[in-house]
Amino acid sequence: MTDPHPPQIDAADAANLSPVVVLVRPQLAENVGTAARAMLNCGLEQMRLVAPREDWLSEKAIAAASGAEIVLRHARCYDSTEAAVADHHRVLATTARRRELIKPLMTPRHAAGVMRAAAGVGQATAVLFGPERTGLENDDVALADAVVEVPLNPAHRSLNLAQAVLLVGYEWFQAGVDQPPVELLTNGAGMADRAMLLTFFRHLESELDGCGFLRNAAKRPGMVRNIRGLFTRAELTQQEVRTLHGIVKELRWGRRPDRPKRSEGGTPADWARGEGD
Amino acid sequence: MTDPHPPQIDAADAANLSPVVVLVRPQLAENVGTAARAMLNCGLEQMRLVAPREDWLSEKAIAAASGAEIVLRHARCYDSTEAAVADHHRVLATTARRRELIKPLMTPRHAAGVMRAAAGVGQATAVLFGPERTGLENDDVALADAVVEVPLNPAHRSLNLAQAVLLVGYEWFQAGVDQPPVELLTNGAGMADRAMLLTFFRHLESELDGCGFLRNAAKRPGMVRNIRGLFTRAELTQQEVRTLHGIVKELRWGRRPDRPKRSEGGTPADWARGEGD
Repeated sequence: MTDPHPPQIDAADAANLSPVVVLVRPQLAENVGTAARAMLNCGLEQMRLVAPREDWLSEKAIAAASGAEIVLRHARCYDSTEAAVADHHRVLATTARRRELIKPLMTPRHAAGVMRAAAGVGQATAVLFGPERTGLENDDVALADAVVEVPLNPAHRSLNLAQAVLLVGYEWFQAGVDQPPVELLTNGAGMADRAMLLTFFRHLESELDGCGFLRNAAKRPGMVRNIRGLFTRAELTQQEVRTLHGIVKELRWGRRPDRPKRSEGGTPADWARGEGD
Repeated sequence: MTDPHPPQIDAADAANLSPVVVLVRPQLAENVGTAARAMLNCGLEQMRLVAPREDWLSEKAIAAASGAEIVLRHARCYDSTEAAVADHHRVLATTARRRELIKPLMTPRHAAGVMRAAAGVGQATAVLFGPERTGLENDDVALADAVVEVPLNPAHRSLNLAQAVLLVGYEWFQAGVDQPPVELLTNGAGMADRAMLLTFFRHLESELDGCGFLRNAAKRPGMVRNIRGLFTRAELTQQEVRTLHGIVKELRWGRRPDRPKRSEGGTPADWARGEGD
């Protein structure tokens, strides 16, 4: 269809070197909507449509976009793939591997690096996605520098449009993320330092000696190492160490008539206010 | 709901150390179906359901699975998350970062490495996905070793269930793929070797000398380098080099009365059967 919705904001696109997602002849407005949602998940906001069959601002499309309506509102419509990519330096075509092509074939991860590198020298990339059932035609693919194919289970490769957009966009986003691959959520809690841990170990081992758990002198050093190992691995917070002091104390002395009085000093409870504090 | 569909195949799961996808209290059968499709895309076939609200073998679910019905047919149903993960050594919870947690937080990529490493020592991982609207409850997350969060646009983070499954499964699959990140599709065509390229360069440069394009002797070396550079960058096949010989010949001599006859030898056409063949 021709463009009943000229984009409301044209500015800034020139300076935005994030990839442009070009949906070539998409069939269902709903799929354009879910693709918009996937784009915004990945920080991509520039959508282009080549001869879409349905209105991409229909109620269905906007509902499917699930909060990414802004992407649909700014989408630009073109009559041909050539027109849609003309102002771009780099063009990638997402498609299954084709026997008749002579073209570089890239994973989305490699393509993300290529697109980031291009952006680094001021070149934006257009990424082509074909119609839902049939994929891109050869003439569309011929416009591209390279083909992007997602490595997936060869026995069940078919992705819907939004999922294909999501995976390519996801890799683009990851390539720009400086989030560490793993970190510890602590809820603001201070982590226990080694002194605090060692104080707990001495408390625990003292009670384990007292109750007889460590009575085998030959095995004691190895047992102590193992017990220290498991608590060290747990990456304890200061509060957790205090809780463990309490657990040890109550397990050993709770409800016992011979429980040492606090005033006697050197009682288990005193460990909790020990060197680590 | 309780399990109206006991799984048809129980065998081999024990030996299959691919992650198990655990959908906790999924609301819509359709979403269970699209999650199954995403799983199979990534080679994941073991689905577990904790108290699903709808029948995961309904027509809607099977249609949404789009060819991944086998995953639904083999799905196992449990009353509680605890029961669903009991036979697993590793449990990961997919959820948005929570302030109240004290737990490792991983990207899906890091988690893929953790899951592959666990599989390498005989331990399968269960990955928990929460209900569509609300996500996992704290008691579910508490069962997990770590939280997996997908780095995405902070302003638009919400993924549907199938997309969350897809991204985690995608990273698992990529971690096991030995496909090169980039390769050249050649349609079986032989690539031109350097001798064939050099023969073409000599043909081209001879004709460019003849027509006067390279008449500036001072600039000639630089121009020749640039021309050679662009054709070298194109990674030409043997057939493409033959085509280029023809193009050069016809551009220079087509329809010209003074076109050298083939029998005279040393004509442009002869270059195509030159040293490179």
